[in-house]
Amino acid sequence: MDIQSLSTSNRHPQDAPYVHKVGLPPKQNLFSEFKATAKETFFADDPLRPFKDQPRSKKFILGLQTIFPILEWGRSYSFAKFRGDLIAGLTIASLCIPQDIGYARLANLAPQYGLYSSFVPPLIYACMGSSRDIAIGPVAVVSLLLGTLLQNEIDPVRNAAEYRRLAFTATFFAGITQVTLGFFRLGFLIDFLSHAAIVGFMSGAAITIALQQLKGFLGIKKFTKKTGIVSVMHSVFDSAHHGWNWQTIVIGVSFLSFLLVAKYIGKKNKKFFWVPAIGPLISVIVSTFFVFITRADKEGVQIVRHIDKGINPSSVNQIYFNGDFLLKGVRIGIVAGMVALTEAIAIGRTFAGMKDYQLDGNKEMVALGTMNVVGSMTSCYVATGSFSRSAVNYMAGCRTAVSNIVMAIVVFLTLEFITPLFKYTPNAILAAIIISAVISLIDFDAAYLIWKIDKFDFVACMGAFFGVVFVSVEIGLLIAVSISFAKILLQVTRPRTAILGNLPRTNVYRNILQYPGAAKVPGVLIVRVDSAIYFSNSNYIKERILRWLIDEDDLVKESGQTKIQFLIVEMSPVTDIDTSGIHALEELYRSLQKREIQLILANPGTVVIDKLHASGFAQLIGEDKIFLTVADAVSSCCPKLVGEA
Amino acid sequence: MDIQSLSTSNRHPQDAPYVHKVGLPPKQNLFSEFKATAKETFFADDPLRPFKDQPRSKKFILGLQTIFPILEWGRSYSFAKFRGDLIAGLTIASLCIPQDIGYARLANLAPQYGLYSSFVPPLIYACMGSSRDIAIGPVAVVSLLLGTLLQNEIDPVRNAAEYRRLAFTATFFAGITQVTLGFFRLGFLIDFLSHAAIVGFMSGAAITIALQQLKGFLGIKKFTKKTGIVSVMHSVFDSAHHGWNWQTIVIGVSFLSFLLVAKYIGKKNKKFFWVPAIGPLISVIVSTFFVFITRADKEGVQIVRHIDKGINPSSVNQIYFNGDFLLKGVRIGIVAGMVALTEAIAIGRTFAGMKDYQLDGNKEMVALGTMNVVGSMTSCYVATGSFSRSAVNYMAGCRTAVSNIVMAIVVFLTLEFITPLFKYTPNAILAAIIISAVISLIDFDAAYLIWKIDKFDFVACMGAFFGVVFVSVEIGLLIAVSISFAKILLQVTRPRTAILGNLPRTNVYRNILQYPGAAKVPGVLIVRVDSAIYFSNSNYIKERILRWLIDEDDLVKESGQTKIQFLIVEMSPVTDIDTSGIHALEELYRSLQKREIQLILANPGTVVIDKLHASGFAQLIGEDKIFLTVADAVSSCCPKLVGEA
Repeated sequence: MDIQSLSTSNRHPQDAPYVHKVGLPPKQNLFSEFKATAKETFFADDPLRPFKDQPRSKKFILGLQTIFPILEWGRSYSFAKFRGDLIAGLTIASLCIPQDIGYARLANLAPQYGLYSSFVPPLIYACMGSSRDIAIGPVAVVSLLLGTLLQNEIDPVRNAAEYRRLAFTATFFAGITQVTLGFFRLGFLIDFLSHAAIVGFMSGAAITIALQQLKGFLGIKKFTKKTGIVSVMHSVFDSAHHGWNWQTIVIGVSFLSFLLVAKYIGKKNKKFFWVPAIGPLISVIVSTFFVFITRADKEGVQIVRHIDKGINPSSVNQIYFNGDFLLKGVRIGIVAGMVALTEAIAIGRTFAGMKDYQLDGNKEMVALGTMNVVGSMTSCYVATGSFSRSAVNYMAGCRTAVSNIVMAIVVFLTLEFITPLFKYTPNAILAAIIISAVISLIDFDAAYLIWKIDKFDFVACMGAFFGVVFVSVEIGLLIAVSISFAKILLQVTRPRTAILGNLPRTNVYRNILQYPGAAKVPGVLIVRVDSAIYFSNSNYIKERILRWLIDEDDLVKESGQTKIQFLIVEMSPVTDIDTSGIHALEELYRSLQKREIQLILANPGTVVIDKLHASGFAQLIGEDKIFLTVADAVSSCCPKLVGEA
Repeated sequence: MDIQSLSTSNRHPQDAPYVHKVGLPPKQNLFSEFKATAKETFFADDPLRPFKDQPRSKKFILGLQTIFPILEWGRSYSFAKFRGDLIAGLTIASLCIPQDIGYARLANLAPQYGLYSSFVPPLIYACMGSSRDIAIGPVAVVSLLLGTLLQNEIDPVRNAAEYRRLAFTATFFAGITQVTLGFFRLGFLIDFLSHAAIVGFMSGAAITIALQQLKGFLGIKKFTKKTGIVSVMHSVFDSAHHGWNWQTIVIGVSFLSFLLVAKYIGKKNKKFFWVPAIGPLISVIVSTFFVFITRADKEGVQIVRHIDKGINPSSVNQIYFNGDFLLKGVRIGIVAGMVALTEAIAIGRTFAGMKDYQLDGNKEMVALGTMNVVGSMTSCYVATGSFSRSAVNYMAGCRTAVSNIVMAIVVFLTLEFITPLFKYTPNAILAAIIISAVISLIDFDAAYLIWKIDKFDFVACMGAFFGVVFVSVEIGLLIAVSISFAKILLQVTRPRTAILGNLPRTNVYRNILQYPGAAKVPGVLIVRVDSAIYFSNSNYIKERILRWLIDEDDLVKESGQTKIQFLIVEMSPVTDIDTSGIHALEELYRSLQKREIQLILANPGTVVIDKLHASGFAQLIGEDKIFLTVADAVSSCCPKLVGEA
């Protein structure tokens, strides 16, 4: 066979070879180049698309609709939709009221603050948010995180007032953080918390939360402040011989089993989704009534005792805007805000995916942030999207964010009229409700899948998990983030390289490890570099290629084949190269010259070929040493070998 | 043309099509997988290669030779080599002695400490180092960095003793840092300081150092402690009307111009390299003699006045191993150690490249570290490889590290016998020598090349430069590092994607932006993802691909072509994928289903295909939807389109 027939870029032997040279794209000017990069970085989702060539008036309306999507979908709102939203709203309301009371305790706040946070924030989100399925309110993990971070600063029992003020301050700055991220289009930052890390973190948090509930569940009076499993177990068993209250345990266990059964039914048969949804409310009513008639609280069964009546009081003047609590508030707010975001965005994306509508992450952040800022001024603590309630909301057939409004109204009525009825609600029930709620955050399947797919991810997952369970929530978070970063850095520092071989009777060249059938071309070493060549890996890549060469030479010596005379570097995966990269290539070229080996490049991409020319490297090795495909390179660089190929 | 003839994986129409399926590599077990990764990460340079299948005794000798390369090259050392080393050694000695005295002043230390640092460290490096051309000793940038960092903690004039102790402590921990990095094979960490950043940092440091010399150069008495250009210029002009000393200026200017002329001659004609090399020593001798006879010091010309006689005293008991100075020492040591490493390794690699011998970065670090640890116990401050002296060493024809030994011996003799002669050496000369030395660190060509090749790198370069010049050395360093990191993160967060088209009369598919000739296949959208798909970019990639689809649909609508029915994702550049990536693909698959578009993958790599199977995604979209090449995918997925292709 002759050269032509080996060259992919040419399927008609009668034509002259190499009709296609490596394309050199039209030179961009600096500004347009910069603009393109900035656009991809901050406006990847092309939010201004609808604004394109519209009259100013229309632009203004579109602008309003962007900030308040309700103006958009509100106009096409119908009764049919409302029916769905009404049912969904009532369902999540019945679920959120008992949860709120419980979660408030996780944040070391009085029960009503949980309810407050389910009143104002959902209303604001309904106007500004673009997710149709998310259910807004306090959530277990964020409540716990906030609780632990806050009580490191102030004792929630002794200085309840300062504690509350710091909580509002943190909430305010959580909101500010979220708005800022959204407004400056920095939403992608939350992507740095990897899926694996989140899975581990959530499961760990769930277990920690469940353990915390042992206090209410066993009716233990004095309980550790730490969240680590060791210290919790300690205070549980220390109080075993005297501190436990059997009546509490009986109530707790019986209702917990009821809730779990309800959960099981809901899982088994999707159309019974409402069973686990209203389970909590039912158990609250029943148990409260039961305690009320038996006066079990006299037997040491702890009860809620008191919830403030009436809706959110203002808390504007309670936020710390100076003093050293300001800084603490900011710090806590940033952490809590980020975690809250991660959860909300994850939920939003999941359901958007299911119903196939696009979600602008940055717009979401602005909505969530605004809702928390306003919340912090109306006695709410950090609210976000709840996994469990959003799922219920979705299954109950919600159509728009109106379901959140319905829920908010129900919560409003509760606050106005029926809070006193919660007086006799036993804490054990709240504990049981929280446990049954958080259990579903422990995701074994996900963890197993991660193990199967990517061991490194699994390490991140476990790191986060054990960090949370054994040390504390923030440490777990820290571990999760740092492992995620370590992975990125490792990726860019030690990219893969592969030796390519020719697939028999084709002109395709592939990794010989992946395709054992692929045959090396005698006298030619074909290496593929599987990453952009940057300062962080340029030196490694250079040395790795030279090592491939040494290994190959050894083989050649043993087998007595023709010694390597050509090194072809397949550049297809090399998406970019920087100055360090160019230097590395130059050094490679020099040491190859000393070895009398010819360096040849195959298929450099747009950016790369651009820079190879700009730096004069293309001229250094010779333009004719750069080919469109490996096949071209092989067939051109060593005609005498074609026969053997 | 028929299907077969379109399929690259098959050049003989008579054969059955698709002889080659995408290869699924043999399953590795967890351990070997882990081992491979660890090896590539920490032992990329395969240091144990020579040890392979050797008897134990040989292994032991090889081990010794690995730690003390001198045992290896020493045995083949010849007189011919020695002649080269002797000349080189004498040359760098004549260059280093005046430089050392000057650099010590940059570190706010007495002149002899500069000489000490050119005596012990070179000897140790000669035994342990593997570079043949590097010249060890104090260098300008590290001296300045150390000086600024130290004087932030202790005043070098008022508490000279504590200052010196902290300097030794920092040196000790600089050494420890270097040894640790080397021993744990973490050498790649210094690669995170990008070439561009170093260029900017070095140039900035050079200017800062030159500015600092104005004190000695103009004979200014009271001078600012800050290194920022603003405050320096301030104290220069404040002292203009009274503080300047014209005799000093006359001496300084005349000898500086002499040195620059010498430098120029050396540059013009390589065989006069020794002119700039011995220039400094000559000017020291001449000027000293001149001052001695004219007693110009009486006219206010500042002179060295006093240098301790004799070699390094021990300083073991002066290192802080407790107290709060320990921590400060550690912090400063780590920074100085890293910078020193960066410089030394860069030099080592450069010259190793020129003479084409391999350099084990990690081994070098151990050598440099040990030399600094020992140095810190013998009254030396941080020593490393000097750009200028190494170049001279190389040009003077050094053959081995023996040139360092020769230099050390000369320094030893100087310390023992002739230090008193430096009494009348005017500081202006030292200033002139330093200025002429650091000028060559300002590398305009490199900066311009960076600008041409990569704008982002240029930003990093300028950031480092202005950070150093206007604020301080450490700030400049900080800016350099953070910009470098930002670049990496940006790369992994916003990878490139490209639309591929078919090159006329071939079955090669390329980026249509790079190859305007490439024709899109009607009804098929071919997208190439140019990066590993990780949690940090998975979501972006998914949305980006969907956006390509929307754009394409608009085009199709306008032109009224066949609507997109197939999405082919070219996976060649996708070197890895993690759980988040798999999830993103699943979501992509779902939303494509809703749009009735068929998802097809082309040429996934080893790791990727592995994970696609592990996660069950391959089964989800159907094994038969994964092809070896884009051409196969195109020709198979839409036979009806083949005619149009």
